[in-house]
Amino acid sequence: MKIGIIGLGLMGGSFALAIKKEFKSRDEKIEIIGFDHNPQHCIEALELGIADKITDEISDMLNLDLIILAIPVGGIIKVVQELKNISPDTTIIDFGSTKEKIIKSIPPQIRKNFVAAHPMTGTENFGPKAADKKLYRGKVVVLCNTEENSKEHLDKAKGIFQDLGMKIFYMDAKNHDIHAAYISHMPHAVSFALANAVMSQQNPKDILAMAGGGFRSMSRTAKSSPNMWVDIFKQNKENLIDSVECFIKEMQTFNELTKNEDWEEMTKWILKANKLHEIL
Amino acid sequence: MKIGIIGLGLMGGSFALAIKKEFKSRDEKIEIIGFDHNPQHCIEALELGIADKITDEISDMLNLDLIILAIPVGGIIKVVQELKNISPDTTIIDFGSTKEKIIKSIPPQIRKNFVAAHPMTGTENFGPKAADKKLYRGKVVVLCNTEENSKEHLDKAKGIFQDLGMKIFYMDAKNHDIHAAYISHMPHAVSFALANAVMSQQNPKDILAMAGGGFRSMSRTAKSSPNMWVDIFKQNKENLIDSVECFIKEMQTFNELTKNEDWEEMTKWILKANKLHEIL
Repeated sequence: MKIGIIGLGLMGGSFALAIKKEFKSRDEKIEIIGFDHNPQHCIEALELGIADKITDEISDMLNLDLIILAIPVGGIIKVVQELKNISPDTTIIDFGSTKEKIIKSIPPQIRKNFVAAHPMTGTENFGPKAADKKLYRGKVVVLCNTEENSKEHLDKAKGIFQDLGMKIFYMDAKNHDIHAAYISHMPHAVSFALANAVMSQQNPKDILAMAGGGFRSMSRTAKSSPNMWVDIFKQNKENLIDSVECFIKEMQTFNELTKNEDWEEMTKWILKANKLHEIL
Repeated sequence: MKIGIIGLGLMGGSFALAIKKEFKSRDEKIEIIGFDHNPQHCIEALELGIADKITDEISDMLNLDLIILAIPVGGIIKVVQELKNISPDTTIIDFGSTKEKIIKSIPPQIRKNFVAAHPMTGTENFGPKAADKKLYRGKVVVLCNTEENSKEHLDKAKGIFQDLGMKIFYMDAKNHDIHAAYISHMPHAVSFALANAVMSQQNPKDILAMAGGGFRSMSRTAKSSPNMWVDIFKQNKENLIDSVECFIKEMQTFNELTKNEDWEEMTKWILKANKLHEIL
């Protein structure tokens, strides 16, 4: 299989390492052609065995078996316009964190080839050096509006995600974007805000010297890249604003209960939060 | 050494397992006398080797070498009144999460015996079964207002924390409580609020099916016990309210930037948050 990967960072790099390992274990041929705007990423991707070849022309990818778009959402929307003339057999999968705007941007003539996917995994690190062949294993991938794909392309995409050891969920793009705001985009904003609340104090070093495991877990994602996250916030603006408002209301409820010393209601509020872990 | 542990949950239980291991490795004698209001905890503590003996009378502890108070802050303030008549050689260490109110409540005649400590560690689990002998290793413990301790008692406490492999920090109680609000108490409120924001949606199960590592880390502490946390929120009310207000302001800044599509300022706001990890 010949696979083009556009974007050789954490997501694209981890995908390459995982799929190569899987194909090699089955003694099947695989070749990865990489593309990245950042020349340093291209060099590292070759060194790390993420890509077998680098191209600086998207047009070199039009006849591959599969193209993976592992770049920010805004970039996916741009690059998909250059893929209008792909072979009818080329499957495209995007890894964007929002789905509605991406799906709307797909040229109609390649709609059936384009499988819109959101792998629910990642770390706070980025670039090819952050790539990890286990990043996808056991994780969820959400496929959106798959009724608009042809069986051939959908089956190829499903096979790839099964090769990665992922659990496949189906969802329409609108619901995906609302849910993603709650489970991923708003929590990232929360982590950035938590970091900024501490950093704006007089002695952040004294405070951080006291950090235990709880604070470390909660602020881990505050390390995430602004480039990637500003793009996601932009693409899911309306759902994000709603989810942040909902979250702020919960924080205000907490502060009101504290001010009123209403410890009975506070206990109920915490017990409700505890229930999350019956589902999660 | 004879040690009394009041409170045989996660903190007291983990302390017992760690200190017993350390003493046994040095071939020194150690005996742990446990006390807990919950009879089930007493049974489990004996079964798990946390306590060698159980007592239901605090007065049985007045002549021990060391008493550990590993109960909620409100409980510490009550029980310390029953320790007025301890032997001059008995050291008391409390593990409470707030320090100012506890220190104010110590009867003057035992002030020099009472070392006010806050081990910056824990998990979202509780009870003797959650005890882990590695809970304290490598973690920070903050000792407050130690100038009010006699050298004998302070040295004994320091020796114990060194035995546990902890890093000792010194701080006055007022600053400790402000810092603890930012590094621990407010972040717990944030985790509960995050869980409640999701749980209040129409389809929490659909949302949670998409949970990746980021959401799991951030909501882990939302599993924490309401009994323990309502007590901490109560004891550190004023500092907590201030820190929650500071955090809410950061979230409101985030939502304003999103609404105004001010992505340039948003990038700066995220870059400021990223700096946390240069210190942490």
